[in-house]
Amino acid sequence: MNHPMPPDESFLYEQLASSITQLIDVGTLQPGDRLPSVRKLSKKRGVSVSTVLQAYRHLEDCRLVEARPQSGFYVRPQVRKRPTEPKISDPPLEVTEVEVSELVMRVLETVADPDVVPLGAAVPSPDLLPTDRLNRVLAAVARRGGSEINTYLVPQGYAPLRHEIARRALDWGCSLSSDDVLITGGCLQALSLSLHAVARAGDTIAVESPAYFGVLQLLESLHMRALEIPTCPREGMNVTALAHAIRQEPLKACLVTPNFHNPLGSLMPEADKKRLVDLCAHHEIPLIEDDLYGDLYFEPPRPKSLKAFDRTGNVLQCGSFSKTLAPGYRIGWVVPGRFSRAVQRAKLASTISTAAPLQVALAAFLRKGSFDHHLRSLRRAFADNLERMTQAVGEFFPEGTRATRPRGGFVLWVELPETVRALDLYREALKHRISIAPGPIFSTTGQYAHFIRLSGGYPWSDRTQQGLQTLGRLATTLG
Amino acid sequence: MNHPMPPDESFLYEQLASSITQLIDVGTLQPGDRLPSVRKLSKKRGVSVSTVLQAYRHLEDCRLVEARPQSGFYVRPQVRKRPTEPKISDPPLEVTEVEVSELVMRVLETVADPDVVPLGAAVPSPDLLPTDRLNRVLAAVARRGGSEINTYLVPQGYAPLRHEIARRALDWGCSLSSDDVLITGGCLQALSLSLHAVARAGDTIAVESPAYFGVLQLLESLHMRALEIPTCPREGMNVTALAHAIRQEPLKACLVTPNFHNPLGSLMPEADKKRLVDLCAHHEIPLIEDDLYGDLYFEPPRPKSLKAFDRTGNVLQCGSFSKTLAPGYRIGWVVPGRFSRAVQRAKLASTISTAAPLQVALAAFLRKGSFDHHLRSLRRAFADNLERMTQAVGEFFPEGTRATRPRGGFVLWVELPETVRALDLYREALKHRISIAPGPIFSTTGQYAHFIRLSGGYPWSDRTQQGLQTLGRLATTLG
Repeated sequence: MNHPMPPDESFLYEQLASSITQLIDVGTLQPGDRLPSVRKLSKKRGVSVSTVLQAYRHLEDCRLVEARPQSGFYVRPQVRKRPTEPKISDPPLEVTEVEVSELVMRVLETVADPDVVPLGAAVPSPDLLPTDRLNRVLAAVARRGGSEINTYLVPQGYAPLRHEIARRALDWGCSLSSDDVLITGGCLQALSLSLHAVARAGDTIAVESPAYFGVLQLLESLHMRALEIPTCPREGMNVTALAHAIRQEPLKACLVTPNFHNPLGSLMPEADKKRLVDLCAHHEIPLIEDDLYGDLYFEPPRPKSLKAFDRTGNVLQCGSFSKTLAPGYRIGWVVPGRFSRAVQRAKLASTISTAAPLQVALAAFLRKGSFDHHLRSLRRAFADNLERMTQAVGEFFPEGTRATRPRGGFVLWVELPETVRALDLYREALKHRISIAPGPIFSTTGQYAHFIRLSGGYPWSDRTQQGLQTLGRLATTLG
Repeated sequence: MNHPMPPDESFLYEQLASSITQLIDVGTLQPGDRLPSVRKLSKKRGVSVSTVLQAYRHLEDCRLVEARPQSGFYVRPQVRKRPTEPKISDPPLEVTEVEVSELVMRVLETVADPDVVPLGAAVPSPDLLPTDRLNRVLAAVARRGGSEINTYLVPQGYAPLRHEIARRALDWGCSLSSDDVLITGGCLQALSLSLHAVARAGDTIAVESPAYFGVLQLLESLHMRALEIPTCPREGMNVTALAHAIRQEPLKACLVTPNFHNPLGSLMPEADKKRLVDLCAHHEIPLIEDDLYGDLYFEPPRPKSLKAFDRTGNVLQCGSFSKTLAPGYRIGWVVPGRFSRAVQRAKLASTISTAAPLQVALAAFLRKGSFDHHLRSLRRAFADNLERMTQAVGEFFPEGTRATRPRGGFVLWVELPETVRALDLYREALKHRISIAPGPIFSTTGQYAHFIRLSGGYPWSDRTQQGLQTLGRLATTLG
């Protein structure tokens, strides 16, 4: 079942802004062109004047259009600089031992430094999250106290929290009960438990190329092997390529991020989702879904989870609150389908249970019902950040630079001219106190030497803008 | 370095009570014998009258002696029933695939039930812990709020908490800096990360026989194999037997609980600790130490950690606050020695970091300095519980039953007559709403079919006493 949220005024303006952006992208609206008057567009689209105005202001914020006094809104000249998208990825079809940890650790060691412009780690700023409200709920839970929050919880997790997650699953197109949900210490633990449940050392797991480096590290630590599957920067994993790989290699699982993949920001079309789920079910290959970013769509409705297409319990859906609400809490979940017992056993064996006070606090926060309201403003903030970042890349980066057009999440995947080595840029940037994630950590096959990932998780500031300008200059020098 | 705490009045009375218990144990004091008068003993031992009186009252609470009006204190008759200790364990020297999870899960599923007499899980009751004070500290941390507690912490963990743990390590005989400590989600995750760091699927790990079932489950989930080493119920792993095993089997690690082993309650003598550490260092076999119960000694000083004897960084010391302060928090640590980088990598790969608010709260609680005060009363409560439990086993259980004499921790390992099958007793007990841990889950070689583990983690009550009486009756019937 899919229960999309009814579009409200804020979605209308976002849709409007998005369709104008597309017209600019494809060149229907040229730099210097005047946009339709607010009144005219309002009438034509059947929306309020204020909605149109809001859409125009949003485009202005994104530096796509500019207002000229007593005249109207015009497409800005630098829009021409909007980078094109990277091409479809083409990793070698070879199973590889995974060894990215040392590099990742060196990258991550820099992200805790507050003096560094934080374009490296895909972490939402606490300032964009309802941190104060969440802290108040935790304080109330701790004040109310009682022994409930100072004892081991069952491995499955705190029942009211599981209930809240099951309730939210309607948005992803799933009808779940709390018993279908198992709480974990973040999405990565959910993925880890899922892998433990369905595979063992030496087994081969299909992943996207590029892949989130955390997944590659996880495979490395479990001594599992990765098979990278080609992706399209808009639509994620190429299901046909996966079907081809299945015929060539015995796969023990597929690990896929269908909604706003990190680092691509891609969104898999529903037809592909269905095909992917059916393909894996047919071959009895467990399908581990990383749906960490699914709530961070820029245009409604909330994209469906792969789990929504799962009729055999073959999908293990993993998610968390780390990117949307509580990065410091380390609370996530897995909906393990037919692998329920094995996942439970893996959790019991590795950590017994998840911290009680934080589960109780999160359940209380979600029950209050202000989470969706917060998500709406968070999505807008991230969409704005990525739009500005795209503009800055177009403006400051060397000729030939490409960038993805994410439809959700908060990271941008940037392909530099082939002469620019991402690791050199990473090192030079650090000297200028700018943190980025270099492309090679997103692959085990030596791909993406000239790619970088930029994160837009922090509020935009002059420092961000200047950081991107410096980065563009460095890339030009290195090229 | 070892920094034992100076004995205070409470330790004097405990020492006194303990030496009288020993006199009763070995038969120097017979049932019906009169204890020396309070005044006389006070003079003889050079302690205050009130200390002697406290010791006698303690023995009375433990039902070892009784006060007769206008006459004095006398050894109680039923003391004769004090069970003898189990013999040295003798597991077959064979490497085994580990498969205890299904059984453990069935056992653990019952422990969450508040209607059940909780003799099964080794969990301290929140009522014996400073739960209210801890809750207040957490509330204050949450109220103070700020973004610090709502962002990812570095994998190593919150620096002030690592500092507090390093400070406490002086008690274990270790001089550490905060950089030596890595925070984990409980002791089990510390063991799990240690195993990940030093071994992989298919490798053989030496463990005690009996072994904590959590360790066996962990090995099972990592597809590692166990080699069970004989133990003595008083002194733990037999180091000579381990040396013998090393010559026969290639071991990838030893996992040992030197202080108050679960389920034995054994304490390894310092000479054995040193020998064990040297043996493993000599053979370059990483030594993983589970020091979860080390703070729960019944007589000072705090026993040394294996780490105190480690000169090569070969010991990975693991501990947590789950048995002494905050079972609901899931916060532990590992001091990984020369495996620091590998452990850090394993943590990054499996969970990234540990929940921030709870680390901040624990650090604040420990800084306040009331933890040692709490530990003193907790040790007394557990010592009392185990003494009463031992009495009850002697009084109610069938002839031929043996029980350990733990010198710390809060579990009792009970050997029933060979005709009593522990799994049958477990099932019968559950029907009477009594939870126990059956012996077979503590081994992978089919040992301990007539053993059970009893936990004394909850405040003693008539219900506990009646539960043990029922248990004894059931064991007699089944025998």
